[in-house]
Amino acid sequence: MKISGIYCPNIVPYNADRSINEPELARLTEWLIEKGISGLYPNGSTGEFIRLSFEERLRVVEVMAKANRGRVPILAGAAEGNIDLVLKAAKRYADLGCRAISVTGPYYYKVKPESVEYYFREIAARSPIDVVLYNIPQFSNEIPVESVRRLALDCPRIVGIKDSSRDMPRFLNTLHAIKPQRPDFSVLVGCEEILYPTLFMGGDGGTIATSGVVPEVVMRLYECFRSGDHSTCRDIQFKLLDLINLMLQAGNFPDGFRSGVELRGFRTGEPRQPLGPMDGQSVTQARKTIACMLADCGFHEAARFCDRQNLTTGSSTQPRRIDVEAIVRDVMGKL
Amino acid sequence: MKISGIYCPNIVPYNADRSINEPELARLTEWLIEKGISGLYPNGSTGEFIRLSFEERLRVVEVMAKANRGRVPILAGAAEGNIDLVLKAAKRYADLGCRAISVTGPYYYKVKPESVEYYFREIAARSPIDVVLYNIPQFSNEIPVESVRRLALDCPRIVGIKDSSRDMPRFLNTLHAIKPQRPDFSVLVGCEEILYPTLFMGGDGGTIATSGVVPEVVMRLYECFRSGDHSTCRDIQFKLLDLINLMLQAGNFPDGFRSGVELRGFRTGEPRQPLGPMDGQSVTQARKTIACMLADCGFHEAARFCDRQNLTTGSSTQPRRIDVEAIVRDVMGKL
Amino acid sequence: MKISGIYCPNIVPYNADRSINEPELARLTEWLIEKGISGLYPNGSTGEFIRLSFEERLRVVEVMAKANRGRVPILAGAAEGNIDLVLKAAKRYADLGCRAISVTGPYYYKVKPESVEYYFREIAARSPIDVVLYNIPQFSNEIPVESVRRLALDCPRIVGIKDSSRDMPRFLNTLHAIKPQRPDFSVLVGCEEILYPTLFMGGDGGTIATSGVVPEVVMRLYECFRSGDHSTCRDIQFKLLDLINLMLQAGNFPDGFRSGVELRGFRTGEPRQPLGPMDGQSVTQARKTIACMLADCGFHEAARFCDRQNLTTGSSTQPRRIDVEAIVRDVMGKL
Amino acid sequence: MKISGIYCPNIVPYNADRSINEPELARLTEWLIEKGISGLYPNGSTGEFIRLSFEERLRVVEVMAKANRGRVPILAGAAEGNIDLVLKAAKRYADLGCRAISVTGPYYYKVKPESVEYYFREIAARSPIDVVLYNIPQFSNEIPVESVRRLALDCPRIVGIKDSSRDMPRFLNTLHAIKPQRPDFSVLVGCEEILYPTLFMGGDGGTIATSGVVPEVVMRLYECFRSGDHSTCRDIQFKLLDLINLMLQAGNFPDGFRSGVELRGFRTGEPRQPLGPMDGQSVTQARKTIACMLADCGFHEAARFCDRQNLTTGSSTQPRRIDVEAIVRDVMGKL
Repeated sequence: MKISGIYCPNIVPYNADRSINEPELARLTEWLIEKGISGLYPNGSTGEFIRLSFEERLRVVEVMAKANRGRVPILAGAAEGNIDLVLKAAKRYADLGCRAISVTGPYYYKVKPESVEYYFREIAARSPIDVVLYNIPQFSNEIPVESVRRLALDCPRIVGIKDSSRDMPRFLNTLHAIKPQRPDFSVLVGCEEILYPTLFMGGDGGTIATSGVVPEVVMRLYECFRSGDHSTCRDIQFKLLDLINLMLQAGNFPDGFRSGVELRGFRTGEPRQPLGPMDGQSVTQARKTIACMLADCGFHEAARFCDRQNLTTGSSTQPRRIDVEAIVRDVMGKL
Repeated sequence: MKISGIYCPNIVPYNADRSINEPELARLTEWLIEKGISGLYPNGSTGEFIRLSFEERLRVVEVMAKANRGRVPILAGAAEGNIDLVLKAAKRYADLGCRAISVTGPYYYKVKPESVEYYFREIAARSPIDVVLYNIPQFSNEIPVESVRRLALDCPRIVGIKDSSRDMPRFLNTLHAIKPQRPDFSVLVGCEEILYPTLFMGGDGGTIATSGVVPEVVMRLYECFRSGDHSTCRDIQFKLLDLINLMLQAGNFPDGFRSGVELRGFRTGEPRQPLGPMDGQSVTQARKTIACMLADCGFHEAARFCDRQNLTTGSSTQPRRIDVEAIVRDVMGKL
Repeated sequence: MKISGIYCPNIVPYNADRSINEPELARLTEWLIEKGISGLYPNGSTGEFIRLSFEERLRVVEVMAKANRGRVPILAGAAEGNIDLVLKAAKRYADLGCRAISVTGPYYYKVKPESVEYYFREIAARSPIDVVLYNIPQFSNEIPVESVRRLALDCPRIVGIKDSSRDMPRFLNTLHAIKPQRPDFSVLVGCEEILYPTLFMGGDGGTIATSGVVPEVVMRLYECFRSGDHSTCRDIQFKLLDLINLMLQAGNFPDGFRSGVELRGFRTGEPRQPLGPMDGQSVTQARKTIACMLADCGFHEAARFCDRQNLTTGSSTQPRRIDVEAIVRDVMGKL
Repeated sequence: MKISGIYCPNIVPYNADRSINEPELARLTEWLIEKGISGLYPNGSTGEFIRLSFEERLRVVEVMAKANRGRVPILAGAAEGNIDLVLKAAKRYADLGCRAISVTGPYYYKVKPESVEYYFREIAARSPIDVVLYNIPQFSNEIPVESVRRLALDCPRIVGIKDSSRDMPRFLNTLHAIKPQRPDFSVLVGCEEILYPTLFMGGDGGTIATSGVVPEVVMRLYECFRSGDHSTCRDIQFKLLDLINLMLQAGNFPDGFRSGVELRGFRTGEPRQPLGPMDGQSVTQARKTIACMLADCGFHEAARFCDRQNLTTGSSTQPRRIDVEAIVRDVMGKL
């Protein structure tokens, strides 16, 4: 019952008119479960919850819950603009059989730390299902470790935290502040760059965006961790680093992940955040490199999009950052 | 027809259950118009658009447009999570007779500057009414000055910018980059701290949150500016500084403004963002000081809430920042 | 006796081996005084104090004080790594007849606000000459307005503040917090982007880096301000904006200012911070545009370096930002 | 020959007049070597290099090199204000038999990434001894991973990097970008919060400030790592977390470390950065808690300063953060 393992924060496939492509979303859900993912995580940041309407967010969870048919637990993102909307969504996700909701700190405004804590206290007191704190200070108000500790001790409804801060000292402080007093509290990482080190230090798993692109690889890492195969874990961790670096350099978040899912055989459709010509170019470039990387990993469906001739970085099979500075430097040198 | 003068980004009054208090919102609208405000500005940051549902945002504009009965222009905040929702709102606001919509850069995610520009290009191409760019980099992706310039030159639908960055060099760069080629483009400031200097340097007005609390004072500054009474303008500007400093130290934004409106005789109700005990205390304290300040300005309705005995800062009628550090220092000295 | 008007934070000319070119420094000093600058300001940020040795900093002030021969007041930068070094420098600058020292908040480490205040309390208690606070939070610990107020009220040795934060609300708060109780306290701006608005609101002058390149222009603005010629002031302010924008886009700070001084006829020598090829290119490009701008202002010595044919931005006499993105976009389009 | 293991960035003991206490510095050096530290690291951030004069920095290395008598390698901090000063220091440190110098990115100004790289290229080309890059973006310009990679491949003189960014993804990217092509390049962590995870993922060691307070504990972790005792490593890592958290909450950096060294039996003297009363109080409080923690670790010399009665956090032997907010809340509640 404890939330652990690898949850996949899936992207949302759109149609050409940017409406949600529900059949494709259901097919993606099926595929993720087949590939062995531990749990589903709709309406995460990768799922662009902020770019959906309230009704669309409910609908995403509904479509996925139906495709899931109870096979794996669902952690449903319920970061809404106010507490009543969070609870309205929570009610619906409970009815759909979700395991828990995940809620970010309030976003847009800067809210004082104490008020952030009381925001979660009220949600915990009124939610019909379990709550996972979602710390992502890049985009929303940070939930300080001291607040997490107090919430964990005071609120049984709050059963874990997903930390996407990319801050390993913070992650360790969280483990250390809470686990001795509440060992059932799940501490999950939201950043594949440090998945293995966090597992190794006592973390319970992760919500890992690349698991939507290469679920086989991420699940392999998790299984090797459980069987104590340190050397393979480390190798996969560094391979994941290459992949996430590439994902993050394509256009705007989560365009790289959308490209990756497409290369695995899904129609992802038109992005909701439009791209300028240069940003669009960066997606095209990154997509080619991702294709080669996936092909090298043995995912043959991506092979036909891998054209090593036209990689910016030349012949290497090892993808590297596209060095924009070097391009400009070359060009300026010729001027 | 050009957007200019002082637009009021009003707060939203709630009921005890945090639903919108529509009659009070209508009464507030009437009061603002009576006090001479140049225009209304629902769904701004002070209006907590992010804490309302989509339907509530539409409803706020509807209630206010009806109360207005066409007397003053309405700039309606339409910062939604995706372009289609922005346009859906724009359609409704156009039907309600609004003058223009105001749209922030995309929020939550970090979006690349070029894509921010293309976001507005698409909105401009499809919007049924005029668009005002809303730059507030504290909370959403910045709209770089170079992008503003290109948008101003390329998109007739984009008729102005409201800049809440508190960045005076940026404001002057905006004026300088656009006005020579497009003098009808409105450059408005969203920050009362620099209202007079921006007017003085060529700005067209402002969306000024304190105008929802002391419309008489802010309109006085604007009229003095137009009549060239420099000395009074400067005096009022510094008085506004005192007021805004106080507003910003109460709880979370916009709790201070809500307190101020309440002291002018409106029921503002329960805030949507809950407050912890210490943050709540800061609202109570600030409210007392605001009451005295309003009383000193001649707004007698606030006088009975002014209890100079219990001001943290003692007997002075001049409100000062509540010096939390000094309190701690005193206490620690006694320990 | 009060510090007011325009102080020039001059650059330091080097030789080919990067040692200080003392004769050229003396010649530059003479030139600035002839052009009517109100005061000298060696060892400011533009003067690269951090890139000089302690002995070189003393020497810069010595050379300039000798060239000055008591004609204008000198504000000597004395931001050293510890209080004893600050005071050692202060002693020397007092002996050389300087008007005051200017001291930044401690740099490198993050120091708590209260300790920043006590750093200045000790300097004020022990300095043999007057002290000007130098607030530049981009590079060193901020001196909060409340600390400035307490220091101004408690320490007669502290006679002013130079604020380079580019933060106009902060500047107004400083004026408002201090002037009513201590009108002789100088509040100077360190940022030409807002020179005129700060003068207009009650500031006492500025330490203005572009005054080392176009002292005639900056002094003209100051004189127009004093004679109440609003319209000319505003025109010059916007012209200064063009110039500072250009200065800031050349290589690393203060490479643009060094280029500007060179175009006015001085040998500025080899920079102490080396430049990579692309950054060097940006200096070369910016220098051409600055040359045209200076030529257009009537500074004929710069005319021969102005080659409008080769400006990145084409034929316009109005300099514009070099649009690196556009270059990359073009290049990528061709790939 | 490769730089690896635990280097101690020691504090500098001062006299009552804040001059360097050289005999105590020699005694501290002797003690660290006796306790088994892998190498010495004078003039690091913990060593307050920025608060020493150039001559004092040379002197610190000289005193320590003499006390060392060649027993352990010395990595000498040589972050000076310009390249010529860096090289002048490097020459002296080479003469004193140091293993290498460590150099931060340029500090104070913001320098463009390419120019940061060329700064190190010149130092590498001219330095008489090996160079370790010191990445500490909190205080000086970041050295991007791509630059580190190019420098590692192009410059044999550059033999490693010490990364104090606290950024684990960056650390892993550094390992991954460089080790395959240059396995002898040392990648050291400068942050004890993540010492064990970085070792475990392939790091070569660390420059660890707490090793100046509890060298026995940090060396124990390192030895356990080498012998593959995972469980002990993890336990020590979390204990170190408690200690560093405490260190960082005392006054200004590195006041907590200075307190810790004092509790181990050294006279650390008067700090160079003065403390206000409240900040001084925080040192006194933290010192008491550190004393108890050290006593609990079996360092009996600290026991007499441990007075559990007066710990802010009560009777727990497990030190916790001093909760300033709670104090204020209590006080305000009583008002």
